[in-house]
Amino acid sequence: MTTIFDAPEEFATTALAGFAAIYSRYVRLVKGGVVRATKVPKGKVSVVIGGGSGHYPAFAGYVGPGLADAAVAGDVFASPSTAAVARVCRLADQGGGILLGFGNYAGDVLNFGVAAERLHAEGIDVRIVPVTDDVASAPAETAAKRRGIAGDLVVFKIAGAAAEAGMDLDEVERLTRYANDRTVSFGVAFKGCTLPGAADPLFSVPKGQMALGLGIHGEPGISEEDIVSATDLATLLTDKLLAERPAGTNRVGAVLNGLGATKYEELFVLWTEVAARLKDAGLDVVFPEAGEFVTSLDMQGCSLTLLWLDDELEQLWTAACDTPVLRRGATFTTEPATDALDDTEGKLTFAAASDASKVEGKCIAGIVEKIAQTLKGAEEELGRIDAIAGDGDHGQGMRRGSAAALDAANTAVAAGAGAASVLAVAGDAWADRAGGTSGAIWGLLLRSWSNALSDTDAIETDAVVKGARLALEGVTRLGRARLGDKTLVDALVPFVEALEKNTASGKSLVDSWAAAAAAAQSAADATASLTPKLGRARPLAEKSIGHPDAGAISLALVAKVAGETIAAN
Amino acid sequence: MTTIFDAPEEFATTALAGFAAIYSRYVRLVKGGVVRATKVPKGKVSVVIGGGSGHYPAFAGYVGPGLADAAVAGDVFASPSTAAVARVCRLADQGGGILLGFGNYAGDVLNFGVAAERLHAEGIDVRIVPVTDDVASAPAETAAKRRGIAGDLVVFKIAGAAAEAGMDLDEVERLTRYANDRTVSFGVAFKGCTLPGAADPLFSVPKGQMALGLGIHGEPGISEEDIVSATDLATLLTDKLLAERPAGTNRVGAVLNGLGATKYEELFVLWTEVAARLKDAGLDVVFPEAGEFVTSLDMQGCSLTLLWLDDELEQLWTAACDTPVLRRGATFTTEPATDALDDTEGKLTFAAASDASKVEGKCIAGIVEKIAQTLKGAEEELGRIDAIAGDGDHGQGMRRGSAAALDAANTAVAAGAGAASVLAVAGDAWADRAGGTSGAIWGLLLRSWSNALSDTDAIETDAVVKGARLALEGVTRLGRARLGDKTLVDALVPFVEALEKNTASGKSLVDSWAAAAAAAQSAADATASLTPKLGRARPLAEKSIGHPDAGAISLALVAKVAGETIAAN
Repeated sequence: MTTIFDAPEEFATTALAGFAAIYSRYVRLVKGGVVRATKVPKGKVSVVIGGGSGHYPAFAGYVGPGLADAAVAGDVFASPSTAAVARVCRLADQGGGILLGFGNYAGDVLNFGVAAERLHAEGIDVRIVPVTDDVASAPAETAAKRRGIAGDLVVFKIAGAAAEAGMDLDEVERLTRYANDRTVSFGVAFKGCTLPGAADPLFSVPKGQMALGLGIHGEPGISEEDIVSATDLATLLTDKLLAERPAGTNRVGAVLNGLGATKYEELFVLWTEVAARLKDAGLDVVFPEAGEFVTSLDMQGCSLTLLWLDDELEQLWTAACDTPVLRRGATFTTEPATDALDDTEGKLTFAAASDASKVEGKCIAGIVEKIAQTLKGAEEELGRIDAIAGDGDHGQGMRRGSAAALDAANTAVAAGAGAASVLAVAGDAWADRAGGTSGAIWGLLLRSWSNALSDTDAIETDAVVKGARLALEGVTRLGRARLGDKTLVDALVPFVEALEKNTASGKSLVDSWAAAAAAAQSAADATASLTPKLGRARPLAEKSIGHPDAGAISLALVAKVAGETIAAN
Repeated sequence: MTTIFDAPEEFATTALAGFAAIYSRYVRLVKGGVVRATKVPKGKVSVVIGGGSGHYPAFAGYVGPGLADAAVAGDVFASPSTAAVARVCRLADQGGGILLGFGNYAGDVLNFGVAAERLHAEGIDVRIVPVTDDVASAPAETAAKRRGIAGDLVVFKIAGAAAEAGMDLDEVERLTRYANDRTVSFGVAFKGCTLPGAADPLFSVPKGQMALGLGIHGEPGISEEDIVSATDLATLLTDKLLAERPAGTNRVGAVLNGLGATKYEELFVLWTEVAARLKDAGLDVVFPEAGEFVTSLDMQGCSLTLLWLDDELEQLWTAACDTPVLRRGATFTTEPATDALDDTEGKLTFAAASDASKVEGKCIAGIVEKIAQTLKGAEEELGRIDAIAGDGDHGQGMRRGSAAALDAANTAVAAGAGAASVLAVAGDAWADRAGGTSGAIWGLLLRSWSNALSDTDAIETDAVVKGARLALEGVTRLGRARLGDKTLVDALVPFVEALEKNTASGKSLVDSWAAAAAAAQSAADATASLTPKLGRARPLAEKSIGHPDAGAISLALVAKVAGETIAAN
């Protein structure tokens, strides 16, 4: 619904004033409309467009060089008055006559038509072109009765380009009518919009249904049907338009238009299927646009518009224009990139490693193997713990990550990598395949640890301990968790501290590691008394009290297995 | 809600592919992101940005000359993986190093951070800048903890402009961090969004309330309050940001951002008040933007972003860029228009009139006076008839229109206008002041009629009759109603036909008019049996059966009064 307004009856006027204030580099505000803020050559045909408000960027957003000279704005969903149309036309007139464009609605036909007659009487040559692109509103045989919807943009673009090119009024009118004859649109609506100050929507579509061919002010459509997939919707829209394809046409301009609350990503998803259907039909698409070009406040729905191109129309469709909404033409001198982009993961190459380090690398791969085996076995249990206060995918992520780490480690060993490289690529693979925050954390942990090792020197206890500290620093530097936040960090900190303390006191790495793993396990168990502090609102945070954190538990588990494997070597 | 999709789990990937297909003139699709489709100079710093999907145009819509070199896209509202970030960076790298920008969220900090470390290890210099503009998410003293919202656009714009200008990585990083330090945003949300395939919204705001400072993924805000007027909302947003205004700042860049279902006109209305408050605070606004720049699917809400400018930042903020969404810089060579636009209604001047025609003009003004008096008296009754199947404003419109017509006619008479001019301006004034379709129709009717008269020759019966026919033609040419549609036309057609028939058979104008007015009255009464056929869906159409059309009744009334006045002269 429309939520931001002061007095509803001043909504349209205030919105126009706000638009003109923001885009004063494009337009100047006049009573009932806007005119270009930049100089226009004397004698140029003026393209003046307009209609009701509530359809932005239709119509004021189309004003600028290469498109419209001025726009007239009525009240929300209501035609501007005859006087407003005539007034804005007089201000836009440069002596070359006026092409007056608007959607084909009774009120607009009347007010723009009467204004044109009034201006004629004053000696200004005005040609009116009502846009009639909506194939749902009348059959092709009576196309002149069709309504104007998102085809407005297309037809006005052609008119604006023709006028900017210096053509005279006869020619601009001919091309505008020709563009209108070759522009077709078909749309669907999912949900109605609410006028400023109104308590209820202007109309409604039954939940789960879509209205085919519904007009931009809620005018009756053809039928109501169940909402379909993007693929089927693309077929529905394109079939309807392709039925009117003129013989010999193999190029089209296209606009996939959102009505307000149907968002860009949805339009992009739909476009993949629309594009496929147009391609199947042997059509090349020229300068397509997807976005919001003719809206109906926050109505939910979309429409597809096609412009059947020939050389003449294509030149005008692709011509430069510069408006708040549609801009074409070179701002920068660019040329297409020609380098091939290889986005496949290349085969990793490794720095030369010493034989000793290669052996240690193999040793590390062996530790990773045990970890992967253990995590595979623990998948269900870790998932169960995680599900208490999370989405329950922790076990799956750990299993997937460690398996990928093992693959990568084995590949690196086979390629002759040293210890540091084996651990590093194992971490990378874990991060990339596990997904989620914990995958990235594990990747960071292993890669940071590897920074204390090398591919040439033998691994000393000091390096292992230093690696553990680097791992903790890495995780807390880029991760956000701190001690007490009920995350893996609650087990990692005591692990690292115990490892440092025990080795410093002269204990062997194996003994120190065992002590550290035990410390990690106690700390992981103790997370049961904590409440999560991080991240988004967690309605389940309280439910987790009395249960340990899955991430801390899995860290303790990995620490234990790794220690056992080191001891066995 | 999100309505258009095929498999929900492929929504983000498909949307990115569709975007890249539409805007292939800007971007090339790679796995997990897009890179510029145009050549980039070797050695240029690459600006790579990204984050979750569902925020279009953030982030892919910012790719192009003068802004980003590439964008990485995660799943809907989820960080891209470390591997994806690293992969896209490698493809965008031109040897000048990489500025990696993203919003300050745990998952993004982690994945972009880990990717940066991985790239460093590969010899690519990468600097990460998390955007922290959301003042609601942490106090100014701990600004580094703030989330990134619509300030993303602003900070990336500065980074892109600095890189495009050929600055080195140190300088680009410095300016990007500086821009981030000087960018603040504050937002409100009215209604949650629904993820593709989800049955329920991600979060909800109580009806009639707004959540202050709510994050773009539904992260907790500061508080919930009653929805306020546009004026109060502007105060709320600007006060919050002005509290952080750096000393000595008197110029700002500004972005008024809609989250998805809060539409452009609402933002423009809000802007009028925001602009007033910024002006009151002594701030000049440079290149403001209002629209959708960082969305959250179809979330309803908006945010205001300010960039505290100095000379260095202003140059970068206003620099040229060319992306699917934000474009700045000259496409056309233009200069500001300097002509004064006078949109006040000028004093009408009239062609020289004969004395006889001036007398007749006064006579016409006398007829209009009687009509205005009669319609004033009939206002309530006409409103009552109209209210049965319409909005009940017909009596008001007719009263207002005829009163304006009388004023205009008297003014014209005083200025020495002839008969044709008096009738024409009376019609124009009626159309302009009455409002609605019937106002425009009455304006058209009188002006068309005046075309059969002149300002020099005396009015003959033939001219009056011809005028009536022109009036009917005018009304049916531009109006859409036909006989039987239950409109004024149902009374006008028999009036004109009776006037023609009776005068042709030799009756006097007075007698013929009386007969024509009687025919109009009978026909108007007979509209009671008709059902409206025109215009939008009319749920009340059936209610109108058994009641005459208000427009036909008022035409018959005007015809009767006019005839009586003609007879009395």
